[in-house]
Amino acid sequence: MDLRETFATNLRRLRNARGWSQDELAFEAKISRGYLSLLEKGEYYVSIKIIGRLADKLEVEPAEFLKRPAKRGR
Amino acid sequence: MDLRETFATNLRRLRNARGWSQDELAFEAKISRGYLSLLEKGEYYVSIKIIGRLADKLEVEPAEFLKRPAKRGR
Repeated sequence: MDLRETFATNLRRLRNARGWSQDELAFEAKISRGYLSLLEKGEYYVSIKIIGRLADKLEVEPAEFLKRPAKRGR
Repeated sequence: MDLRETFATNLRRLRNARGWSQDELAFEAKISRGYLSLLEKGEYYVSIKIIGRLADKLEVEPAEFLKRPAKRGR
């Protein structure tokens, strides 16, 4: 799984856990709504600058965004 | 602590744990030696594209690079 997808999946999950829409999170983290939408689709390799801002607003550890689902049979 | 510093500290630690010089890691991960050096100094907000490549070569989970040292008194 490409790290873009891992990030996208975690971002959607953490945003939903906070109960925020894309609009709300984009506003809070000061990123454009369009860019956030593409990040959640796994289109971009995000930088840790943005990860830091998202983590801050969602009140989670930055590392949470890169955690991959456990692999089977390992 | 800025996330650039967290990343830089973890990168140096994980590279040393593998026993590699900056030259070796830069070669393996196909990034320039100069860029790697600046990353280890906390000068840049790295993208998850590079984190993925470094994690692959150092055989660690990508999330390891963003883990912050535990805060005291929390």
